[in-house]
Amino acid sequence: MAASALLRSRVKRPSYLNKLAKAEDLVSLFPNGSYIGWSGFTGVGYPKKVPTALADHVEKNNLQGKLKYSLFVGASSGAETENRWAKLKMIDRRSPHQVGKEIAKGINTGEINFFDKHLSMFPSDLIYGWYTLNKPNNKLDVVVIEASAITEDGGIIPGASVGASPELIQMADKIIIEVNTASPDLTGLHDIVLSEKPPARTPYLVMQPEDRIGTPHIPVDPEKVVAIVESDYPDQTQPNAPEDAASQAIASNLIEFWKHEVNMGRMPQNLLPIQSGIGNIANAVIGGLSKGGANFKGLKVWTEVLQDSFLDLFDSGNLDFATATSIRFSPDGFKRFYDNWDRYSDKLLLRSQQVSNSPEIIRRLGCIGMNTPVEVDMYAHANSTCVMGSRMLNGLGGSADFLRSAKYSIMHTPSTRPSKTDPTGVSCIVPMCTHIDQTEHDLDVVVTEQGLADVRGLSPRERARVIIKKCAHPEYQPILTDYLDRAEFECLKKGMGHQPHLLSQAFKMHQNLAENGTMKIKNWD
Amino acid sequence: MAASALLRSRVKRPSYLNKLAKAEDLVSLFPNGSYIGWSGFTGVGYPKKVPTALADHVEKNNLQGKLKYSLFVGASSGAETENRWAKLKMIDRRSPHQVGKEIAKGINTGEINFFDKHLSMFPSDLIYGWYTLNKPNNKLDVVVIEASAITEDGGIIPGASVGASPELIQMADKIIIEVNTASPDLTGLHDIVLSEKPPARTPYLVMQPEDRIGTPHIPVDPEKVVAIVESDYPDQTQPNAPEDAASQAIASNLIEFWKHEVNMGRMPQNLLPIQSGIGNIANAVIGGLSKGGANFKGLKVWTEVLQDSFLDLFDSGNLDFATATSIRFSPDGFKRFYDNWDRYSDKLLLRSQQVSNSPEIIRRLGCIGMNTPVEVDMYAHANSTCVMGSRMLNGLGGSADFLRSAKYSIMHTPSTRPSKTDPTGVSCIVPMCTHIDQTEHDLDVVVTEQGLADVRGLSPRERARVIIKKCAHPEYQPILTDYLDRAEFECLKKGMGHQPHLLSQAFKMHQNLAENGTMKIKNWD
Repeated sequence: MAASALLRSRVKRPSYLNKLAKAEDLVSLFPNGSYIGWSGFTGVGYPKKVPTALADHVEKNNLQGKLKYSLFVGASSGAETENRWAKLKMIDRRSPHQVGKEIAKGINTGEINFFDKHLSMFPSDLIYGWYTLNKPNNKLDVVVIEASAITEDGGIIPGASVGASPELIQMADKIIIEVNTASPDLTGLHDIVLSEKPPARTPYLVMQPEDRIGTPHIPVDPEKVVAIVESDYPDQTQPNAPEDAASQAIASNLIEFWKHEVNMGRMPQNLLPIQSGIGNIANAVIGGLSKGGANFKGLKVWTEVLQDSFLDLFDSGNLDFATATSIRFSPDGFKRFYDNWDRYSDKLLLRSQQVSNSPEIIRRLGCIGMNTPVEVDMYAHANSTCVMGSRMLNGLGGSADFLRSAKYSIMHTPSTRPSKTDPTGVSCIVPMCTHIDQTEHDLDVVVTEQGLADVRGLSPRERARVIIKKCAHPEYQPILTDYLDRAEFECLKKGMGHQPHLLSQAFKMHQNLAENGTMKIKNWD
Repeated sequence: MAASALLRSRVKRPSYLNKLAKAEDLVSLFPNGSYIGWSGFTGVGYPKKVPTALADHVEKNNLQGKLKYSLFVGASSGAETENRWAKLKMIDRRSPHQVGKEIAKGINTGEINFFDKHLSMFPSDLIYGWYTLNKPNNKLDVVVIEASAITEDGGIIPGASVGASPELIQMADKIIIEVNTASPDLTGLHDIVLSEKPPARTPYLVMQPEDRIGTPHIPVDPEKVVAIVESDYPDQTQPNAPEDAASQAIASNLIEFWKHEVNMGRMPQNLLPIQSGIGNIANAVIGGLSKGGANFKGLKVWTEVLQDSFLDLFDSGNLDFATATSIRFSPDGFKRFYDNWDRYSDKLLLRSQQVSNSPEIIRRLGCIGMNTPVEVDMYAHANSTCVMGSRMLNGLGGSADFLRSAKYSIMHTPSTRPSKTDPTGVSCIVPMCTHIDQTEHDLDVVVTEQGLADVRGLSPRERARVIIKKCAHPEYQPILTDYLDRAEFECLKKGMGHQPHLLSQAFKMHQNLAENGTMKIKNWD
């Protein structure tokens, strides 16, 4: 196969061009039962051609359920690849995070064995061999990585995410590289370290968000590279979730809190490195920092993923530096970023998820960690993953990496969500979470559009009062208070009242939601 | 006051001797509502004279409930001080860990506002100012520290524990030092670093358990020292919990597993740094490593607390080095340790709990983390603190510091415990934990006397099958399997079967225990 001029300009290692292949000719590298790794994180930087060719092959030959794989991706891949694989019953096992209707369906109907894992720990566990216990060579069979360029010594310059690619490559038996010529060459944007196994591990010598500790590329053993494929379309991202009144109120509550903390001398004037997730609340918080009212200057960001609002924050002049493992911009955001490459690129660094989400670094930097849960309970446990204790949404992600280790561990959520029949049918403040991903030992602040509960240094019963009072929706305050009063009365009486619960009633609001479409129960009897 | 010759030999800083006082003369330093810190960790290295004098004062003057304090100690203090304070209603607030009948009673009847916290994080949160939010100067009023000696520049050589003493001293407005002349001078046994606040934090450059990164003493601002008190009796420890058949079976299951991991190349021949807790299972595991069968040589220990069995492990020749924040030996163990100081002291190092329990170091070293829970559920969540979801035992301790970050995260427990009326009335494997301190994302292995469940890389439904099969007591296997079958059937049908639960039934075994004295329910209808 002849390489295009564009491809040759991206691939600095000539021997790789001898391995140029079409995706559809690589199907035989993927026998049924293979263990596969893909690059990708939050829907950017994922391989596009090979997964699509395999899906086409299954579809064309009616092989649904006959070619099934164990699939490992740093976090979510592109919907057009992963969802299609799920729909074609090509996924037997998947970890550690996913986004998509079809894959969620496969997980929740029992088709797909999914397990979620702290995103910082997934690459560690991978190189420990935890996910390949049954493979004689302990390796992943094939790893498919998207590159924006290839260095002279055969190393990979990733695309818009790094994710778990370094460790996937370390664990690969064979490597396929998809060089994406439809997106710009991102050389210089990344800082890569590989993972050593204990007892050979060393510290991550990051003292500030801008510190570089690695190389601009992922080192690769060239003999493992079995094919190079040219990829010809960019990441298929969606527009960001817009702010709404509730998310703006939450952002406003948070910014007031930070002002207070600065005034009390507990935080520097330029705050501490900010971690913020995806979604409308995150957008509102970062948006709030761009605007005049907040007036925090010299901000730095240490986070997992950047969305469009961070471009606004750069443009406001308030943000000095941002680092993450993924830039998940909208199509417009990517255009803006690439069109203004010189303005943004030296203030931005992409790292592996093992580093971006490293508890070591997060605790050292004293990050402000923020996340949106499914629900929070009155004692400050939080559910990040399983609706009604059972139905998986997307996975844990990096929520616990940050909330455990951050200096300020913050859960932000609307106080209610609509059910099918009641606009405030679901209270996000509940007596007991139906699934717990973040424990009471890990949260400092809970904030809703109603207010902010600062639970630092409070006992569980104190926490419960302040969370109900400050965060619960007015319609749920009496219901939750009634539960707490009854639980306190019963448990203190029996000398077991540290964290009072009535086990027979703890999920009554959830059961009522399932049966009657609302958590508004009439009484606790 | 004249200092004894023994005291003068211990206090190298002459100016401190001018501050020599009797404990009973210091009562006025402790007005009602004071915020107080004590040294101490797992019942060793705690101050003895001042707390006792204050308790005597309250008792003698009928001041119960009129002198109440917020009390912060790295972990548990001596029972004769802390329990007495609880009984005399002298504790308004307490964190982060405690051991003792009276203090547990105070917590569970609502007298004491207790909150537990990761032991690595407690000193961090303390210096952040989280626990003194209401104090204008953000300080603890008085901190009482036991020393085994004092250096020429006024620094403290701790006793048998370091715990949170460095940070308590950093946060102290006034410091009282109790120099314990009834125990030996432990100079050289400690390695101390103070805690900086972000953004000034730096890495802990520990690459192996024996690495020293600090000073042999805790630096102290001499002007803050308001009194020196001579302390005249040693730590009041108890004999260790003996091994029994169940704990030996658990140890044997674990050692077989480690042999397998070594054989598969996933762990070095000398294993990885071991963390082990207190109690009979921990004793049996460490005991098992001392004996011929295991045959692991060159072991190292990175743990929170050392008990007597580690002396046996040193004597077996299998253990090269051990480090912790506390040596909680029995009275016989302490005698053995002090009598053979030259044999043990250069193989042993005590650090602050912020370092011993540091997630940064635990992950870097790739520790083998082990802990005993209240209960584990079929999906591999664990309850470490609250019986029946409500009654506090001792606190979280360092369990989550280690289990989150260890390479091997292991929960060991007997499969059942006796209730009042049924010798196997309490199953330690349950459908859903009534309180969750360790999440499904944090456990690799669950082991009971029945067997070992290796849940690495398994989805929740797979985990549940293997935990029930390998770990549950035979009398509970059909009960648990029945729950799982029903939950799977109901939840998969509804497309919410990632982690199947029946919310109305999840605690039925616990409710039956409360009502009928056993978790053996007749059916799930």
